[in-house]
This record gives sequence, structure tokens and C-alpha cells, in this order.
Amino acid sequence: MTTNEPMTAYVAAFVDELARANVRNVVISPGSRSTPLAMVLAEHPDIKIWLNIDERSAGFFALGMAKAKKEVVALLCTSGTAAANYFPAVVEAKLSRVPLLVLTADRPHELRDVGAPQAIDQIRLYGNYPKWFVEMALPEDSCEMIKYVRTVAERAVSTAIAGPSGPVHLNFPFREPLIPNLSACHSIWDKGRENGERYVNVSYSLKWMHDRELYAVGSQLQKKKRGLIICGPDDNPALAKAVVRLADELNYPILADPLSQLRSGQHSKELIIDGYDAFLRNEEVVNSLQPEVIIRFGAMPISKSLLLYIKRYPKCQQIIIDEDNGWRDPTLMASNMIYTEPVHFCNNLVNYLSSCSNRIQAQKTNWLKKWLMLNQITRDIVLKNGRTDNLFEGQVFIELTELLPPNATLYVGNSMPIRDLDTFFRNNDCSFRVLANRGANGIDGVVSSALGASTAVSPLVLVIGDLSFFHDLNGLLAAKLYGLNITIIVFNNDGGGIFSFLPQAKNEKYFEDLFGTPTGLDFRHVVEMYCGRFIKVNSWELFRNEVKNSINSKGLTVIEVPTERKSNMDMHRKIWQAVLDKLSLKMVEVNNL
Amino acid sequence: MTTNEPMTAYVAAFVDELARANVRNVVISPGSRSTPLAMVLAEHPDIKIWLNIDERSAGFFALGMAKAKKEVVALLCTSGTAAANYFPAVVEAKLSRVPLLVLTADRPHELRDVGAPQAIDQIRLYGNYPKWFVEMALPEDSCEMIKYVRTVAERAVSTAIAGPSGPVHLNFPFREPLIPNLSACHSIWDKGRENGERYVNVSYSLKWMHDRELYAVGSQLQKKKRGLIICGPDDNPALAKAVVRLADELNYPILADPLSQLRSGQHSKELIIDGYDAFLRNEEVVNSLQPEVIIRFGAMPISKSLLLYIKRYPKCQQIIIDEDNGWRDPTLMASNMIYTEPVHFCNNLVNYLSSCSNRIQAQKTNWLKKWLMLNQITRDIVLKNGRTDNLFEGQVFIELTELLPPNATLYVGNSMPIRDLDTFFRNNDCSFRVLANRGANGIDGVVSSALGASTAVSPLVLVIGDLSFFHDLNGLLAAKLYGLNITIIVFNNDGGGIFSFLPQAKNEKYFEDLFGTPTGLDFRHVVEMYCGRFIKVNSWELFRNEVKNSINSKGLTVIEVPTERKSNMDMHRKIWQAVLDKLSLKMVEVNNL
Repeated sequence: MTTNEPMTAYVAAFVDELARANVRNVVISPGSRSTPLAMVLAEHPDIKIWLNIDERSAGFFALGMAKAKKEVVALLCTSGTAAANYFPAVVEAKLSRVPLLVLTADRPHELRDVGAPQAIDQIRLYGNYPKWFVEMALPEDSCEMIKYVRTVAERAVSTAIAGPSGPVHLNFPFREPLIPNLSACHSIWDKGRENGERYVNVSYSLKWMHDRELYAVGSQLQKKKRGLIICGPDDNPALAKAVVRLADELNYPILADPLSQLRSGQHSKELIIDGYDAFLRNEEVVNSLQPEVIIRFGAMPISKSLLLYIKRYPKCQQIIIDEDNGWRDPTLMASNMIYTEPVHFCNNLVNYLSSCSNRIQAQKTNWLKKWLMLNQITRDIVLKNGRTDNLFEGQVFIELTELLPPNATLYVGNSMPIRDLDTFFRNNDCSFRVLANRGANGIDGVVSSALGASTAVSPLVLVIGDLSFFHDLNGLLAAKLYGLNITIIVFNNDGGGIFSFLPQAKNEKYFEDLFGTPTGLDFRHVVEMYCGRFIKVNSWELFRNEVKNSINSKGLTVIEVPTERKSNMDMHRKIWQAVLDKLSLKMVEVNNL
Repeated sequence: MTTNEPMTAYVAAFVDELARANVRNVVISPGSRSTPLAMVLAEHPDIKIWLNIDERSAGFFALGMAKAKKEVVALLCTSGTAAANYFPAVVEAKLSRVPLLVLTADRPHELRDVGAPQAIDQIRLYGNYPKWFVEMALPEDSCEMIKYVRTVAERAVSTAIAGPSGPVHLNFPFREPLIPNLSACHSIWDKGRENGERYVNVSYSLKWMHDRELYAVGSQLQKKKRGLIICGPDDNPALAKAVVRLADELNYPILADPLSQLRSGQHSKELIIDGYDAFLRNEEVVNSLQPEVIIRFGAMPISKSLLLYIKRYPKCQQIIIDEDNGWRDPTLMASNMIYTEPVHFCNNLVNYLSSCSNRIQAQKTNWLKKWLMLNQITRDIVLKNGRTDNLFEGQVFIELTELLPPNATLYVGNSMPIRDLDTFFRNNDCSFRVLANRGANGIDGVVSSALGASTAVSPLVLVIGDLSFFHDLNGLLAAKLYGLNITIIVFNNDGGGIFSFLPQAKNEKYFEDLFGTPTGLDFRHVVEMYCGRFIKVNSWELFRNEVKNSINSKGLTVIEVPTERKSNMDMHRKIWQAVLDKLSLKMVEVNNL
């Protein structure tokens, strides 16, 4: 067998540097042109490889893994449309700030744009989505090119991680022969920097706001009694405590998105509002809650009623904290965009505020009491009315809060599940971590993302709608091949449940064809093909037992919760109406606060 | 329900013009932002809509339909990663010259790059792959904007068709409310040009070579006895007859790729060589066949031995005819790149040659006889040795030539099936049409492509490997939802069979993990989920019966041919060896010609 020695030296140096840069996992899809990287990656003792045949699923599998582990995961595929299949995951990684390192093999220059097989134009294949794109040099074994390839490896990993994290794409042209000399790799791995040091250490500094500017913000806030803190999707474990301290100091309520990680955890929940999505649907309530200032952390929350509430008060000062220089303000009403590290920002602000002579009263303001009362009323109604003998999608999240062990991770599908999570997943003292693909909010790739996450955390429960489950059925192969442990709860209302809530639903002529889109699929077949357990539950008792069983079992379990789109919508409307009715009765009391 | 009148006028004018431009089919994936186009398209009496939930499958479904119908098929999806899922099909459409019109809905400008849900940067989303990209204006009902939208519709369709055909991408920003007034559409459709005329008729001219240049080519050819005509993948039904006349006039053999459409049909097969892939593996044969000139039509053929044969003779004049100004020459040895309409080129060349005083002898040259003898020997051996009692992938194509009705269309998967087609699908007098995704040669999207084609032609038989079948299992939903008639023959050797033929196979340590990649899936489950018939055959008798049954039945039938990677490779090698052995015995005779 002819091996390619210069290529081996180049590729082995690259892989060595990835390992030194703490890349521990690579998701590989089979192909010929990618052979040099695939074989050397497989040979490296510190790198684990995961085979995933469908590159679209592979992309999301890597995304979920990177998200859960908070570290760079690499992807490798061959040339051609294989690489194009990564595109949805690359887009999601960019928008949700997940560090992915995409490695694509390519034909060398002389075989490009000349009708050679599996040769497509891979230069900037993903457009502006990658944070960095490099068309790699052809493999050479010169001293200069080994420096080059080690440097690129380190830059690629550190660029993917640096805030905002995101995808980096390296395109590798390879000439035949494609077989590396694996026996030569180990000596090459000894040739890097001594003591396993990285070839180049890249350091980024934290962004800390200048004291003078911070104090200016603090002075403004001190004057504003009617303030709000809004925490959107975020996964910084240190944020909860810092924000709670800030809220406490300012006497502001915290509106916590279900993906903010603030509804669960050991921190105080006293000021955390988890029912706003329901009560901000009431116009009387919205009118009575005129804010003077809003401080936002994280991405924009899921709740549409919250969005409309913010837009109702265009004169309100809106301060957005974003460590990563984004512009996450679809209201277009931000008055202050502050690019700074949020935990440090909160802590420093609290220190400043608490040291001021005109320190804010520790006593709860009426403004705060009002929010807390509205939330308590809503919480009671939703918990009471959200429970029914029939299977109901929203109730699943009420049940899960009680059923899951405190260290569980919940992965939640887009469209309806994430919205039900918002309404029905309430404050709790567990340590649940809640993840979702909220960069582009796609229903694609969610199964694979959750499976990728399941390699890092356990137990993991995915709640997903039937169309989204269908979209990524291929993802289930990873569960079979790697014996991954996951519980998938599928809301099966046979179609696109969310559309029943939209004006499109009123068009009877085309609604089912264009939006309802029932598939009539019995997922038992496909789950059994992937050697999973499939249970279609017909009662809450069975649901509870099966969730508990599954969490204590190995492998793939799919629990189908059969529901009906129309009655599901009716049930939601009934609950929101019950909240509104109750609030109408209580508004005098609330407003008298 | 609030409808949006200016938007209705704009969208209805656009859809009207698509219909006038003969767009008859639109493949739609469900979504909210795309509602205006989806509803108006559904309302138009001349447009058929096809729902396909998975946008990746939808893209390939449209591609297969457009390829089989030879007309523009449109795609429509909502904003976000939905659109990114079309990417593989867009790439394939570009490289295989298939006219696709990709319509993506988008958020309006004020909701872009501000963290709004399902908002991604869709400007030039597919990079350089579309032939034309337009960021559409926001809907307006002014006279000027109606002219604009009708013009863009016509330009988009005609641009997609114009050679080389390919994808066009229109990105439509839509503001809420998204509901069109369907009752207003019909009067808008009466407002176009009179008598159903198109708003603007776009005409492209055929490319005809100047007589003087053509005669120069003809004079050169007259002097060259050892010429070859090579027909690669192509789907121009008029080409066969014209090329056969030219070959006849020049006394050149025609090496016909299985996708050239020359191995089937009513034209003479006397000069058509279908066994070259096998006999050009013999070095002695290659050495004895030094060509002076090669004339190539269509894309580069599939056969690697043919490629190596061409490269063996760098001094040979190589004339490439391409109507569409491409550069399909991975040998980098073209001496003449002629951009002209090939049928006209052949006919005019024949007219010139036959009118010359020094007309070439009608008698067969020894050069031609040699090719014909080599082909006959190979043909006999392959047909004899390709038949075995055990199930063998190659034999499937020998069987199909006999089993299929003469008007059948064969869709062939990439990787091994297309190569077996090359070796085992021999000249015949049926009218088989043979299609494959040979733009980027991906194993992705093949099921959907074939299903898309099945809406246009019948009967349709797809032959595909198990990994490629797995890759696009989601495509099968269309078969269920639309009751499409298709026979899918799956070569199930549990993994990537082609890799056994590559040097990678010698690395025992990683071969199965990285290249063999067995999945162990029993496809019966999933086929039954899609309400298809699944038969795993264990004998040729059963295979033949089931193929016949399936062709005469409605719906989806999947016939699995279980094989084994190792023995499959051995069988191929045995056949090639038998060809070589026989040729070695016959070479004296051949060379004495």
C-alpha cells in the first residue's frame, strides 16, 4: 500500500495541534477524499471519533455535543454535497454561538471546475456564516508548512471559541495517494512543543466596563423604581446568582425565559417571574405595568406577549448587555447597548449601588409586589388548569418538573414545545439545564442535537413535536450505533400544531394541505428499526411510569404523547382565558398596591 | 381575518407570471413566513403544489422532477435553516444543469440581524451556486412594482432554463399580515398580457458554429483514422441519431456512457461500445489502442479506466463539444473546446464530410474492427460470468435490461450502482431512459430525486445502495402522501461497498469504523411506516417475479437485494479477470486486424 509521507507529516501535525488545543471529539462522515484526516484522527489517542453517515445529522450531533460540553467539536466529511449538508448546522452554530470546527476535504486545484467527480466549489462554501474560513495549503513536509499547519489549527480552535463562539471552516485539498502512514504519526506527535504545550497560546481578555461608565448606569437606575430585568436564553452558570443579587439591590423583578437557566438552580427564586407569557396577554395588565427601564441579558426571550409588552412602551429605557458584541434587539428600541461581561457587570453594579449614600430601600416596592402578585395568581391558575385527565402537551412540562431527577438536562424542540416550556415549566429548586436550538429556531436537526448533548450529560430528555422528530429521524442512527441514553418525548398531533394558533388557521380551503400537513406516520416502526423502545402512552399514569423507567434505563426510549391539534389549541386558550378571568377579578387589588 | 391587499397584488402578479412562463409544479415545505406565496400558488388553477416537509428532500424531489420533465420546477420554504436545507440540491442542480427556481421567504429588513426568530442572513445564501440571485423588493401594489415583479418572474424562469440550466434564487421579504386575499387573485390574473401571453418573452439563440471553422475541424478529422467518439452523461434525445451518423461517416467507434442515453433506443448500436470500462483495465489493450483524436459529447463519463486510458495518450487531440460553455475536462488535455449545439454540429459535419471529394471509405477500418471485437469479447464474458446463482449486485442490471418494459426509466444511485450500471447495463433496443445525480455525484437526496422523476415518467425503477437509501429515507414520505409509483431496488451490503475497492480497504485497524460503516438496519420497518411493500429477495427467481409484480402495481415497493461487501468485490474482480484472461488469449488476433 502506497502511503503519502509529506501528507502524513502535515496532517499529523495538524491533528496533534487539535488535540493539544483540547479538541476531544470529532464527528466523521464516511468518504474517500477525507481519508488522510479520518485515519490520523482515529489514530490519535486523545481524540474520540463518532461516525455519522448523514452529514446533516452529523452537523447537528456535533452542535449538540459542543453546546452541552461548552467546547469545540470538530466535523469531518469528504468533498461534494456531503459538505453542503452541514449548512443548516453551521447556520445554527453561528446564530447560537456554538464553537464548531468544520473540516472538509476537497479535490486539489487541478481537479476543480473541470467536471471531476464529487468536486464542487468549496471556497467559502458557507458564505459569511463561518467566523473564519481557510483554504488550506496542499500538504507539504517543510519546516515552514508544519509551522503553518500547527498555527492554523490553534487559530481555528481559539477563533471558534472566542466570543461570540461559532463555526470555523477549514477546507483541505488532498492529492492521491490518500493513505497516511499511521506508524509515522506518533513520532510526529512528539515533535510539537515540549510538555504537551500548544504551538501558540491564544488569550482573549474579558470585557470589563470602565468604572465611570458603570457608575453612570448605576446612578440612572437608582432613580428608576419601575425597572425590569429580563433574562433571555443563556447558558452561563454564574449568571443566575449575579442577576439575582442585582435584582435584589434594585428591587426589580426578573422575567426569566425558560432557557435563561434561572428558573432552576440553587439561587433564590423570590424575584423570578416565570408566568409573564400568560399574564402579559391581558391588555389591562399590560397597561398597568408601565416600566421606566429594562435591563436585558441573553438572547431575546421566546415569549411573544413579552415582546409586544416591551414594544408597547417605546419611551422606556432599554439596556442590553451582550458580552459578544451582538445586536439582539428585534424591538429596535434599545437605548443602551453595553458590550461587557455580564457577571462582572452585575457584581460591580451591586457593589456601586450598595455603597451609595442614597441606597435604594431594601423593602419591596409596590411595583415589585405587583409583578409578584400577578405571577403568583398566574402560576396557581396555570398549574391548576394545566392539569387534565386527557393528555395535553403543556402538562408534560408540569409533569417533568416533578418527574426528572434534579441533575437532568432537558432538550426542547422548537415551534410548540419551546412555547409550552415557557408557559408550563415553572420555577423549581432542581438543577435542570434546559437547552434548545434557538439560533435560527429551526425544527431541523433537533434529534441529533439532543443525541450529541447526551454524550456529555445524563439523564437527557428531549421533548419534540412530530414534524421536528420526523425531520431528523436519521439522527436516531447515532443512538443505535453508540448505545446513547436518551428519552425522547414526542408530541404527536400529526402535523404542524403551531399553525392552529396563527391567522392561517382560518383559511379552511388550504389549511390542512399547506400548514396542518398531517403525515399519518406510526413512528413505532422507525424507532424499532433503530433498536429503541417505543411507547405510545394513553394516560398520565403510564406517562409517568414510562418516563421514570426510561430515565433509569439504558439506550433509546421514545415516548409518544398522542394529542390533537384542535383540542390542544382549545386547551391553551382555555388556560390563558382562565388567567385573564382571574386577573380581571384581581386587578383592582393589584392596582391598589 | 386581516388580509394584506398590496401584498396580494404583488404576489398574485408574480405567481400569474410563473404560470404564464409554464411553471406547473411547486414543491412547498410548510412554514409561516412563506404563507403569501404558498396560498396564492395553491389557489392558481394551473399550478400543482407538492408538500414535502423535509426541505432537503423537497429540494431533491424538485430536482428529480425538473430533470425528468425538462422544465423549471419551483421550491418554496419559510425563512431560517429551512432554506439552508435546500443547499445540497441547489449545488447538484447547478452542476448537473437542472433548472430550479428557489423561492425563500424572509423577514423584512427591520427584523434582520437583530435576534428576531427564524431570521438568518439569506442574501446570497447559496453563494455562487445560483445562476441569478434577487433580493426581492417588499410587496407594493404600484404600477411600477407590478411591472417589476412580473419581469423578475419571467427573467427567473428563463434564466433557470437558459443553457447551462441551473438554479435561480429569489428571496422574498414579507411583513405581517401574511394572509393574502385569495378572492382578489383571480382578477389580478386577468390583468396580465392579453391571451395568456407572457409579460416578456425571452429568447435565446442556438449556438451554431461558423461553417469555416466547422470545415476546418472536418478536414482534420478526415486525416485521422484512429478516432474515438465518447458520449458522456447527457439527456438530449436527438443526440443519439446525430452522433451515430457522425461515427458512421468517420468510421469511429462510440464509447457510450450508460447515462449517455445511447445504449438504449431505436438508433443503430453497431458502432456503440458498451464494454470499455472492463477491457480498458487491460494494459496490453490500452497500449494497442493509441488514438489520434477523441471527440467528446456530454459530461465526463463515469468509467475510471476510460479516464486513465485517455490520460495515457496526452498527445491525442481531444475535442470537447459543450453547448453550455462549461469546462468538463478533468484530464486537462483538451485541445479544442467547442461551444456549439451538438446535434447541429454533428449533422453539419456529416454533411460536409460526405460532400468532400476525398470522402472517407465506407468500409470499416481495422481500428474500428478492433474496438468492436474487443467489445464483443468483453460483452460475452461479462454476460456469461456476470450471472451466478447467488445474488450479485452487477447482475441486477443484466436482469433489468430483460425485465423492464421498453419505456421504463431507470434512476441509478451513486457510488457502486452507477459503476455496476456501467459494466453490466449493455446495449439494447428498448427505449430506457437512465438518470442519475451526476453533478456532484452525491449519495444524498437520491430517493427524493427518483420520486420527483416518478411524477413525470412511468414505470420508474431506482437502484440504490443501502447508505444512499438511508441518507434520504425521509424522501419516502412523498411516496406515501402522493401515492407515487416507484420500485426501489436496494443493494444492501450493510455499509459503503465502494470502499472495499479502494486502497483504504487494506487498513484493517480502521476500515470498518471509518469506511465500511455498517448500520445493521432492517429497512422493512421504515418502508412499512411509509406504507410501502418491502421484499427481501433470496433468489433470482423471486427477484424477477417481484420486479415484474412491482412494475405492474401501484405505490411504493422496495426490493432488497442482500449482498456482502467482500464477496461482491471478489465477484467483480473475478469478472474483470475473466475479461482480461480472455483478451490475453485473443490479443494476437485483435492486433492482427
